[in-house]
Amino acid sequence: MDNHYFQSDPQLNSALEKVNQLINQRIKVNNQNLQTALKKMASKGGKYLRPAFCLTFAQFGNNNWKSPQLIKIASSLEILHMATLIHDDVIDDSPERRGEESIQTAFGKDTAVYSGDLLFTVFFDLLVETMENSPYLSINAQAMQKILAGELGQMDQRYRQQTFLEYYRNINGKTATLFSLAAQEGAYFGGADSRTVHLAKHIGQNIGIAFQILDDILDYKIDGGLNKPILEDLSTGVYSLPLLLVLKDYQEELMPYLAKKRTMTYKDTLKVQELVNRYGGVTQAHQLAGKFTNKALQLIDELPINGTQKLLKRVTGQLLDRSI
Amino acid sequence: MDNHYFQSDPQLNSALEKVNQLINQRIKVNNQNLQTALKKMASKGGKYLRPAFCLTFAQFGNNNWKSPQLIKIASSLEILHMATLIHDDVIDDSPERRGEESIQTAFGKDTAVYSGDLLFTVFFDLLVETMENSPYLSINAQAMQKILAGELGQMDQRYRQQTFLEYYRNINGKTATLFSLAAQEGAYFGGADSRTVHLAKHIGQNIGIAFQILDDILDYKIDGGLNKPILEDLSTGVYSLPLLLVLKDYQEELMPYLAKKRTMTYKDTLKVQELVNRYGGVTQAHQLAGKFTNKALQLIDELPINGTQKLLKRVTGQLLDRSI
Repeated sequence: MDNHYFQSDPQLNSALEKVNQLINQRIKVNNQNLQTALKKMASKGGKYLRPAFCLTFAQFGNNNWKSPQLIKIASSLEILHMATLIHDDVIDDSPERRGEESIQTAFGKDTAVYSGDLLFTVFFDLLVETMENSPYLSINAQAMQKILAGELGQMDQRYRQQTFLEYYRNINGKTATLFSLAAQEGAYFGGADSRTVHLAKHIGQNIGIAFQILDDILDYKIDGGLNKPILEDLSTGVYSLPLLLVLKDYQEELMPYLAKKRTMTYKDTLKVQELVNRYGGVTQAHQLAGKFTNKALQLIDELPINGTQKLLKRVTGQLLDRSI
Repeated sequence: MDNHYFQSDPQLNSALEKVNQLINQRIKVNNQNLQTALKKMASKGGKYLRPAFCLTFAQFGNNNWKSPQLIKIASSLEILHMATLIHDDVIDDSPERRGEESIQTAFGKDTAVYSGDLLFTVFFDLLVETMENSPYLSINAQAMQKILAGELGQMDQRYRQQTFLEYYRNINGKTATLFSLAAQEGAYFGGADSRTVHLAKHIGQNIGIAFQILDDILDYKIDGGLNKPILEDLSTGVYSLPLLLVLKDYQEELMPYLAKKRTMTYKDTLKVQELVNRYGGVTQAHQLAGKFTNKALQLIDELPINGTQKLLKRVTGQLLDRSI
């Protein structure tokens, strides 16, 4: 676990340690190597952002935000996230994840598909233990469907000039849904009032969208980082915001490279990267991410003013500034 | 839907039609082609055995076994089954399923992984709608874990002479769990008494084990069928019961072929098939399947004697006799 955004808060850090321990306990596979790999994935490199937001929002209520129930709920979010990461890596044939070999690379497609499925069942189990008699079992089921609809939508648009609306809809589904859920259910199970729960949902959503745009920008950064292979999206045909922003006006320059689709060389992708930067795609995408960040910060201002609200404001600012 | 085992019961058939309609309604994907393929998979070739057993056991209680709740529960079983089939096909690179191209072949690995995931969420959604405030949400979560543990266990044993215990444990997980769940939750939500629910669970389990052994035998039948590619398990390294039964005594004859593992030719697999038949692996496996069938039939005899019990006895006998 490597949560540098929330590191200034020792109480939150110790709660996130508990989340990590619980996840390790729940990952039980009858295969020693796979179990070790999954535990490593759960412990190393993961930023635990979703559990961290969940437990931060939980502090707006009067319940004990470090209760076993909230630790389980926070863990369920990270487990769902891990399951989707493992399946994403199967789909993209990604060699790495969190600085280690991906499950797919280390154990093959077979194990990766089933271990993602297994994590879905662990997720489901944690929900059943913590959320019965609340509307949140159903909200979680809907969230899972939105996440998958986002993934399927993105896949559908491969090698196509998707509209901005399609792009937003897909990143809203595949990324913002889980941030929104984390914030919303954290506030709810922490015992916050309904206005705070409502705000939490929208704050999480805006953070999630800004986060994903910034992640998509990384693909086009000349000097990227964050353990993410550069230009991976582009080479798998996902045209994200920085490219979409310039594609319409610079079709003639860009299409000769893009038209090659699966046969694009590494050099071709570098050329597209250069053109997207030159024509301002990266700058404009940053500005758009900034709008969602500001919206999130404005909504945070509407929350009850206390230490948690200040922490949240600072962390959100830092997180969404990470690659500017 | 192609349920010839239960076809003599018009009421059950009309309920299974409703199951089919509900599944079709619930499969909603923002991709027309995929939606069509999934609906085709849900409608064509599927025997709906699990929903059929569920709704048959539901008739042992006093509740309305054709209620929307029970139709949803029966549907959830088939949806979970479909999800695991789709992921199995990704793993085995199976070209066909239910007489049509597999989702993986038609749409690629990407779509197949996500559409399996999507069906898991539909499954989850149906459970949340029907089972809150019952122990069955948790029982379903545990069943899902057992199914995956069985799949992972089987994968772990590839190209190995697994013990009989390992074989039983894996088929118990990957197949018998869902038959057992179908029978048990059918009886429970139909309002049957606790003794009947308990019997249902064990009847379902024995039926499931016998069913899987018979399915494994098909791989070695010289003249197979049932839309199943012959010798698929063998060529992917899964050594199932007929082979395991003779492997110990005929190592010398069999190992030269098996030792080739992934480089076994089609001719090699035919040779193994011939040897397994010659040395009695198929006959012995049939006898073992017969023991589980008889156990199921004995337990059915302990159920309240009525028309449903007779139907169940007849159908079980027919189903588990299918390849003798």
